[in-house]
Amino acid sequence: MTLPRLLARYRDQVKAGLADVLHGEGLLYAILRYHVGLEDGQGVAGNHMGKFLRPSLVLSTAEELGGKLDQALPAALALELIHDFSLIHDDVQDGDRTRRGRPSVWSRYGVDQAINAGDLMQALAVSQALRTSRKVTQALLEATVEMIEGQGLDLDGEHEPVAVPQYLKMIDKKTGALIRCAFRLGAMVAGAPAEIEEALVEMGTQLGRAFQIRDDLLAVWGDKKATGKPQGSDIRRRKKSLPAAIALSRAVGVEQGLLRELYDKQTLTDEDVKTVVGVMEQVGAHQAGQQMVIDYLSQAQVWLAKVPFSESGKKEMEELIDYLARRAR
Amino acid sequence: MTLPRLLARYRDQVKAGLADVLHGEGLLYAILRYHVGLEDGQGVAGNHMGKFLRPSLVLSTAEELGGKLDQALPAALALELIHDFSLIHDDVQDGDRTRRGRPSVWSRYGVDQAINAGDLMQALAVSQALRTSRKVTQALLEATVEMIEGQGLDLDGEHEPVAVPQYLKMIDKKTGALIRCAFRLGAMVAGAPAEIEEALVEMGTQLGRAFQIRDDLLAVWGDKKATGKPQGSDIRRRKKSLPAAIALSRAVGVEQGLLRELYDKQTLTDEDVKTVVGVMEQVGAHQAGQQMVIDYLSQAQVWLAKVPFSESGKKEMEELIDYLARRAR
Repeated sequence: MTLPRLLARYRDQVKAGLADVLHGEGLLYAILRYHVGLEDGQGVAGNHMGKFLRPSLVLSTAEELGGKLDQALPAALALELIHDFSLIHDDVQDGDRTRRGRPSVWSRYGVDQAINAGDLMQALAVSQALRTSRKVTQALLEATVEMIEGQGLDLDGEHEPVAVPQYLKMIDKKTGALIRCAFRLGAMVAGAPAEIEEALVEMGTQLGRAFQIRDDLLAVWGDKKATGKPQGSDIRRRKKSLPAAIALSRAVGVEQGLLRELYDKQTLTDEDVKTVVGVMEQVGAHQAGQQMVIDYLSQAQVWLAKVPFSESGKKEMEELIDYLARRAR
Repeated sequence: MTLPRLLARYRDQVKAGLADVLHGEGLLYAILRYHVGLEDGQGVAGNHMGKFLRPSLVLSTAEELGGKLDQALPAALALELIHDFSLIHDDVQDGDRTRRGRPSVWSRYGVDQAINAGDLMQALAVSQALRTSRKVTQALLEATVEMIEGQGLDLDGEHEPVAVPQYLKMIDKKTGALIRCAFRLGAMVAGAPAEIEEALVEMGTQLGRAFQIRDDLLAVWGDKKATGKPQGSDIRRRKKSLPAAIALSRAVGVEQGLLRELYDKQTLTDEDVKTVVGVMEQVGAHQAGQQMVIDYLSQAQVWLAKVPFSESGKKEMEELIDYLARRAR
């Protein structure tokens, strides 16, 4: 699947910007460059980077609304670094040994250094934002706080599956906060009026939901090679995911009992994971989840229509929306 | 030992300010209030707070240089919150189960929540600083980055004892950065000229060294009740501490071999810890360390003389310096 133009266009600039921010000496900075995929862990240039969804949204939004790219870049980098810092700590919290097809930071450098590296990345992120303005920095910090609150909801009573409304509340913070922030920062840099920022923020909420749900579906039914993560790991870790939320609300009788029993177990075997996936498929969780992705993306399109983007800008956003609905990684 | 006036004076304001910043709903904010000692973990008002050294230095410096207390308060709170966030993560990294005489955050709420709570506290800290000015926020972030780099040096090759010069390099960052920042923020809020800020920063480096070395001495020879930490824990964890650095440089023959052997062990028994303390005492590490505390504090006094504090301001700083040299916790 080719990368949509909106993501492809800014890739080199974001990459160069990250290399600039993370150029420091010593092990800590090498860990950060390893994490974002600039290096392979031996100091050699690597190429295991993420999609740069958030910074690309900042930059394209700023440009579409008449802002300057070089003014938007520090804000875009700041947001990507906040996202990246949260991934370092998430992997520790989730016990995930793999990230983008390589060992995660903690599994390569140990938990202590991973905590410290994430802390550094948060501070460097905010320093970047501060290069733009106080207002941008405040917006970034508010989104960061919201994301961390969402992570707190995820960790709270971990391994207890939740219903769909609670799941949505959690991902609106955990994932939605930074996606909304991407549009907000873009609008701020361009000096866009409040009502445009608000429409973009609404669009961000819908995109955030679609994005996270697609992520959850890929974690169960995706191709390991494309996602860079072991299949079924969300189930094994009994994460609060959408398929789990749907399965628990739809399963009845024996299946319901089986699910509850398995989600009470300390350790799930391969066989257990298969059983859970079986129940999920039986109750149509995959299909229902993908329908939610499509519905949220349609709602995003409604908001998109209200935003004064150029025709080509809207087309690129449509292309991105289409990609988000079908992406394999 | 009575609290010096400089620390006693601002205590209620800092406490009220922290309560205000950390008033949020939910478990995460309750964890933060527990950590700073505002609550006992059941939501009841507690009283297990720290010394508030850093915020007190911000506030007194600002006032002495003609700044307004209410303008300095957000900067002071921001710095204390950065210090507090680092303690939450430090305790995870060091495996310390006790902090200020109570279970540390990770030992009470688990490592995952501790990582997340620390992340939140860092973001809340910077938000506070931003209420003051961009310049203050930038200074806080620079100090935070430096502190984290120092922590990185501490973690790098952990359990490998270092010589005194490397030890000083590490604590100048890990501890010194925030103490220097306290003076810098106070001077900035008051709009003091650069040469005064520089003299204060020099004083901060000396105070930071004295403070950390006294901490290291208390960790080995202090009263457990006063420090709120188990005795000898630095040795058990084979931390890079001053007594270890001195002992390793002074011990010869059998003692040198014994130390090297013990610092190579994975787990140290009570007997091992006693042996290490024995060697430290034999080579005069306690006395030499305390002499360093006194020397650094004398140097701090030289810088203090160059700063345009009032007579009473200088007297209070002298009182604080005297307290730092002799404090038991």
